[in-house]
Amino acid sequence: MSEFTHFNAEGKARMVDISEKHETARTAHAASSVIVSKEVYEKMTKGEVKKGDVLSVAQVAGIMGAKKTADIIPMCHPLSLTGVDLSFHWEERDDEYELHIESFVKTKGSTGVEMEALTAASVCALTIYDMCKAIDKGIIIGPTYLMEKTGGKNGDYKRLKA
Amino acid sequence: MSEFTHFNAEGKARMVDISEKHETARTAHAASSVIVSKEVYEKMTKGEVKKGDVLSVAQVAGIMGAKKTADIIPMCHPLSLTGVDLSFHWEERDDEYELHIESFVKTKGSTGVEMEALTAASVCALTIYDMCKAIDKGIIIGPTYLMEKTGGKNGDYKRLKA
Amino acid sequence: MSEFTHFNAEGKARMVDISEKHETARTAHAASSVIVSKEVYEKMTKGEVKKGDVLSVAQVAGIMGAKKTADIIPMCHPLSLTGVDLSFHWEERDDEYELHIESFVKTKGSTGVEMEALTAASVCALTIYDMCKAIDKGIIIGPTYLMEKTGGKNGDYKRLKA
Amino acid sequence: MSEFTHFNAEGKARMVDISEKHETARTAHAASSVIVSKEVYEKMTKGEVKKGDVLSVAQVAGIMGAKKTADIIPMCHPLSLTGVDLSFHWEERDDEYELHIESFVKTKGSTGVEMEALTAASVCALTIYDMCKAIDKGIIIGPTYLMEKTGGKNGDYKRLKA
Amino acid sequence: MSEFTHFNAEGKARMVDISEKHETARTAHAASSVIVSKEVYEKMTKGEVKKGDVLSVAQVAGIMGAKKTADIIPMCHPLSLTGVDLSFHWEERDDEYELHIESFVKTKGSTGVEMEALTAASVCALTIYDMCKAIDKGIIIGPTYLMEKTGGKNGDYKRLKA
Amino acid sequence: MSEFTHFNAEGKARMVDISEKHETARTAHAASSVIVSKEVYEKMTKGEVKKGDVLSVAQVAGIMGAKKTADIIPMCHPLSLTGVDLSFHWEERDDEYELHIESFVKTKGSTGVEMEALTAASVCALTIYDMCKAIDKGIIIGPTYLMEKTGGKNGDYKRLKA
Repeated sequence: MSEFTHFNAEGKARMVDISEKHETARTAHAASSVIVSKEVYEKMTKGEVKKGDVLSVAQVAGIMGAKKTADIIPMCHPLSLTGVDLSFHWEERDDEYELHIESFVKTKGSTGVEMEALTAASVCALTIYDMCKAIDKGIIIGPTYLMEKTGGKNGDYKRLKA
Repeated sequence: MSEFTHFNAEGKARMVDISEKHETARTAHAASSVIVSKEVYEKMTKGEVKKGDVLSVAQVAGIMGAKKTADIIPMCHPLSLTGVDLSFHWEERDDEYELHIESFVKTKGSTGVEMEALTAASVCALTIYDMCKAIDKGIIIGPTYLMEKTGGKNGDYKRLKA
Repeated sequence: MSEFTHFNAEGKARMVDISEKHETARTAHAASSVIVSKEVYEKMTKGEVKKGDVLSVAQVAGIMGAKKTADIIPMCHPLSLTGVDLSFHWEERDDEYELHIESFVKTKGSTGVEMEALTAASVCALTIYDMCKAIDKGIIIGPTYLMEKTGGKNGDYKRLKA
Repeated sequence: MSEFTHFNAEGKARMVDISEKHETARTAHAASSVIVSKEVYEKMTKGEVKKGDVLSVAQVAGIMGAKKTADIIPMCHPLSLTGVDLSFHWEERDDEYELHIESFVKTKGSTGVEMEALTAASVCALTIYDMCKAIDKGIIIGPTYLMEKTGGKNGDYKRLKA
Repeated sequence: MSEFTHFNAEGKARMVDISEKHETARTAHAASSVIVSKEVYEKMTKGEVKKGDVLSVAQVAGIMGAKKTADIIPMCHPLSLTGVDLSFHWEERDDEYELHIESFVKTKGSTGVEMEALTAASVCALTIYDMCKAIDKGIIIGPTYLMEKTGGKNGDYKRLKA
Repeated sequence: MSEFTHFNAEGKARMVDISEKHETARTAHAASSVIVSKEVYEKMTKGEVKKGDVLSVAQVAGIMGAKKTADIIPMCHPLSLTGVDLSFHWEERDDEYELHIESFVKTKGSTGVEMEALTAASVCALTIYDMCKAIDKGIIIGPTYLMEKTGGKNGDYKRLKA
């Protein structure tokens, strides 16, 4: 007797086959943010956070995070990234301060780098939380999303509004 | 001649010394979410996503992500987690569907597991994005924040409102 | 005086040079199994295992394991896998139940993916053991072997009998 | 409207909570094997395998594999291993040669090291396959199972027959 | 017939059993350095290195490297580090500039953190090389050694001269 | 109000964009060493070190270390190495013994493998320290540097003297 456990093509997790896809230049650009109190904002911008210079550490963490994407996200294909960068800018609203994080990732490969860009931005935001949580555990990591991607058969993508 | 590059206690990144802190039971509970279109919601809940059963994979990813926290977040102390769990629930608003993700992490250690709970929730959300991005690249990972923590000298923390 | 510690080409471990090999499409297909008692079989197939849905978790573990192969097996070359899948089927014999595991791995590279397929199948089997060991520590991971490989200068391989 | 995706305690994967379990000395002892042809046996024992001294490399791989267990097996708790060892012995049967692998792992912790011992033995066997596959892809990794464990509330376990 | 491959206690690699050792506070302090040309020194100290602020990145790399020690060094025991720090100072000699790196690591465990301190210093030096190699590939990583360790049954160690 | 945190091209860490660089065959050759006392030399060469055969383990560690380079060195690009090898030779001077370590790494990629060769040599040296530190904590890891590299637009490099 042999009983076959049926997992149809829809119900089963797998790393999708990209063997037939062409290697092309691909980029992705994602965004996240960290919303902090005035106290955290002032300590961050004055370099008075106990664990060290927050943005330097977060930038390194985000870049290393991009390289770990296929290790963290189960169905992601491993890719040889050819470039990773991050940028930051502060926005003030009343008594709330939002640090915007943008990530930029490039590769030459058979699939896109959207997940690498999103992971870089998320890890960067998590690192900022870590370094400031001794001051305020109420910090919120803001929405995280894809801004733009280029390359690949399915064409480019650009978010209309953030 | 010797020139000392000065990094004062504020300006330098370091893994803060917790040698003198006592080992106590600690928990943390964090939240994130994923905001999807009706099409993604229907495919997710009907199990029609091409890469497989989304929430099963995301749950595994989140738990494994919690264990990778000290490898991903530069200044985090390595901790032996004693329990990790995740839960999901859907909220519908007009034509938008938000999948709420909650993570629960426990340890017996000299520092808290806030970062492990936040990392579990973030990795879970990123995995959902990965598995659904072929349907819609516009999916947004919602705000990510600490809900509650217990244990440790500094006392408990509970967010007043989400 | 200089004393040369001699390691000849036979006696020394190295990552063999594949620089001159061509990149071609390559596949590998491996098998393993888990032999369980009637009690474990019934709990697994009814979803009553305390740690969760066993095969979903094992499938994710196997796919992630394939990606970790070059990190686990010392002399393996790192490869960018282009596809990984696993399938399961149950075989009943008297009062013994064997869950057959098959793995399928693809790449476009200068060396084969036999180790990735074997590692996927092994990690999948180990994960099933882990999730069921609270019920029965006597579970046996069955023989693990290569079923087939294609691509590469040395030609294809197909096992005559399992 | 809020629709709760129900995952009951049976159906959901989680890292089981061991916070209340006591730290005790724990050991585990597992076995695996590799079944090779006469040609592979002779090259292995004469040190003529192209990739290097097979058993030295396999021993290192197995020990490092034990340390990676919680990274490879999704629901495993991270543990600080206090000792890992492996031993080998050859058995000849007709024209078939079986290299028996035994692993021994120790910790002082809140859960057992069965998975670490099984992972050490599996990784050791996979490494032997890798180093000999240029000679013969038909090598079979034999059954892998727990021999014995000690420590913990549930008492000791000893396999009656291999 | 059964042929036992003999590996005696001296000839075989293993992770030494530390189960009987007591958990005590332990520290280690190691040193390395990087010897650079005047051009590299000036670009480093003026922040004109193309890849970014060299010492910030090297500090993060060294701290993360300390946490990876048991993953990199085969026979090292995994340890929960309780603190890691690094410091730098420049020494000028004629037209050569030496950046001294010192690492400080703490734990409460059953074995020492000498390897973690040495790994932190080495990874820090390698990172500096990486970030400056576009200017000068001739940079030399200077001697790397243990300065001091405290804790453990075998007593403290202090290097008499560097 | 929006305040832009300015990180100019010089002050910010990033993974440099190599998307436009051509894939070519590349090699790198680096050196390190370990300087030991007569006692350590004699135990190493007689195989009497308690943790096992030092050079076998160090060789495996160095090769695995080369594969981990992009995970350890923050701004390094991930590369698919096509070959890694290490060699050792002893030099005796008075009552001091220096074990010279040389590493050789190859790839076909868009950037060089200098860091992989340096990391292989460093990890190899650190592993030797680890395995001999029970005999003598005063062992010194000697200077570590690039010997030669070939391939890439910027041409070859060869160190004039060690």
